[in-house]
Amino acid sequence: MPILNNVFLGSQKNAIKLMATDLETGMQISIPATVTEGGAITIPARLFTEIVAHLPEDDVQLQVKEEAPTTIEVACGASSMEVLGLPATDFPLAPEPESEAVCEVTGELLRGMIRQTIFSASTDETRPFLTGVYLLVEGKEIKMVATDGGRLALRRVSLDPPARQKMNAIVPAKTMHELARALAGGEEKVTVNLAEKQVVFVQGQLRVTSRLIAGQFPNYQQVIPQEFKQRIRVNTDRLLQAVRRVSITARDSANVVRFEVAGAKMTISSNTPEVGRAREEVEVAAEGEGMQVAFNAKYLLDVLGVLDAEETQLELTGPLSPGTLRPGGRNDYIYVLAPVRVYA
Amino acid sequence: MPILNNVFLGSQKNAIKLMATDLETGMQISIPATVTEGGAITIPARLFTEIVAHLPEDDVQLQVKEEAPTTIEVACGASSMEVLGLPATDFPLAPEPESEAVCEVTGELLRGMIRQTIFSASTDETRPFLTGVYLLVEGKEIKMVATDGGRLALRRVSLDPPARQKMNAIVPAKTMHELARALAGGEEKVTVNLAEKQVVFVQGQLRVTSRLIAGQFPNYQQVIPQEFKQRIRVNTDRLLQAVRRVSITARDSANVVRFEVAGAKMTISSNTPEVGRAREEVEVAAEGEGMQVAFNAKYLLDVLGVLDAEETQLELTGPLSPGTLRPGGRNDYIYVLAPVRVYA
Repeated sequence: MPILNNVFLGSQKNAIKLMATDLETGMQISIPATVTEGGAITIPARLFTEIVAHLPEDDVQLQVKEEAPTTIEVACGASSMEVLGLPATDFPLAPEPESEAVCEVTGELLRGMIRQTIFSASTDETRPFLTGVYLLVEGKEIKMVATDGGRLALRRVSLDPPARQKMNAIVPAKTMHELARALAGGEEKVTVNLAEKQVVFVQGQLRVTSRLIAGQFPNYQQVIPQEFKQRIRVNTDRLLQAVRRVSITARDSANVVRFEVAGAKMTISSNTPEVGRAREEVEVAAEGEGMQVAFNAKYLLDVLGVLDAEETQLELTGPLSPGTLRPGGRNDYIYVLAPVRVYA
Repeated sequence: MPILNNVFLGSQKNAIKLMATDLETGMQISIPATVTEGGAITIPARLFTEIVAHLPEDDVQLQVKEEAPTTIEVACGASSMEVLGLPATDFPLAPEPESEAVCEVTGELLRGMIRQTIFSASTDETRPFLTGVYLLVEGKEIKMVATDGGRLALRRVSLDPPARQKMNAIVPAKTMHELARALAGGEEKVTVNLAEKQVVFVQGQLRVTSRLIAGQFPNYQQVIPQEFKQRIRVNTDRLLQAVRRVSITARDSANVVRFEVAGAKMTISSNTPEVGRAREEVEVAAEGEGMQVAFNAKYLLDVLGVLDAEETQLELTGPLSPGTLRPGGRNDYIYVLAPVRVYA
């Protein structure tokens, strides 16, 4: 359907409305405009984006000719462009789903939640229920969870006021990615609305609609270790830099990086016989039983880059059991990571 | 030859020397070091680059083990890495060519000359003599010229003191690209040296050696129009923005953008029947006979981005004859551009 490459533009009262869809995710926004005569058209989205990106700083005049050949004229300053489109009447307009408001959260918090979980979602299309971000709302809490089977990220945020209804649904990671790009950060509220097999996010004049992924999300609570054998506190940036360096010589051996604490030092190391090896010591505060454990460095770097905390708290349960990372002293974000089995 | 992917490291008196080569271009540099014991090794360049890029801010200790397995240990702060290399004795050391100094020019000027000409060189390997930048030195002037047959860029710079000898040689564009990246900008002088079939650029401890391209460079002077029918002066940034916008609807029709001056307005336009059309007016100061002419927008955008002048002077000779662009009021840079034949 070539028209799906087009963006819909239509006049409203004192506004123009833009819509785009891939039949799974849809976005629309209204922006203030002085409308002298009504009209609508669809035009190639990529071309229109490029035109808009290069317009000079000035008011833009849009003039649509609906009869064939369907065109829009974009005039701005000394510049004038006429672009061929397709009739607005051919655009696949999904009926507005009947939806009910679930809860409200600020744009900044919602974007942060997406950023801290989405990278853990799976890209394996044979298990579609893992390719989304699990969104749970109940009472005074909204949660997002994503997992690819090897690691899991869970972020909680308090709701005030509390949710109007319960919700749990798997939202495609692609939608979440586009949502995070489209949302304004800051304090402007986003309303989460639930419809049949769909979720709708509304922020001001922006409306993002997405189908939900069918299926049962894994029992994520079961995955989170309830006890630990060793707890390590370490400066996040120091750990990130060290893991990044040590992982250079792990690239050709599945990114395996080893960790071991002795006293107030954690030794991070890697070894790829045909390439070389690396070793770095990082100051830590540790308690509990010492052990050797190995992780995939990429999975660690992913989370260390979004932890947003000066201190990282690492809890280990054994060389074959999942460890956890969380921001030091906080309980609103947890990352569960299966070790690599190099220590038998 | 896998060792060509490696960089050579060897100790000197109070310095270490780094060398790399692809057998056509070679680079070497010495950097100050405290040498306690001599040694040399070659190690994978990409791996070494990545290690160095991620080292903490601190002194670096290098320790080479020359006997098999040949390794280098890189220690810095709390970090230590050991990387496998290949013996320095296997590195293809080209004999230092006997070269004679030709002239001196500052790093900033040489980089500028490369930037203003290199994009006009051809990428067509069937005409190797067009894939380089022609370097001419004589008396009080150094010139660079590059052309792909459709356009030509010529940049001149005055030499003080004058050249010690004449030179004309075609240097591979690839070398020029790497040279511009490696040179320090600013006032530090670069010496151009000529050897048999080779050119050597030296700036401080940096030494870039390149083979020359055999063949006869086209008679570039013949290509530069000596007269014009219309001369147009226009604000460079205004022209650049307008051409960029108008070219959006020219993408699918060979980037053809049309120009025509009436009075103090230049109209820039494009038209691709199945996509759309664009038109923009730009204020100009024009003299001479008015005409219609079309150019490849990409070729114009290339030069407008490196012209480094508030005003562009455009001289037209006819719809089928080359036009020229130069920085307003200056004669040290000229760009010759064949029109696209859309006006019969």
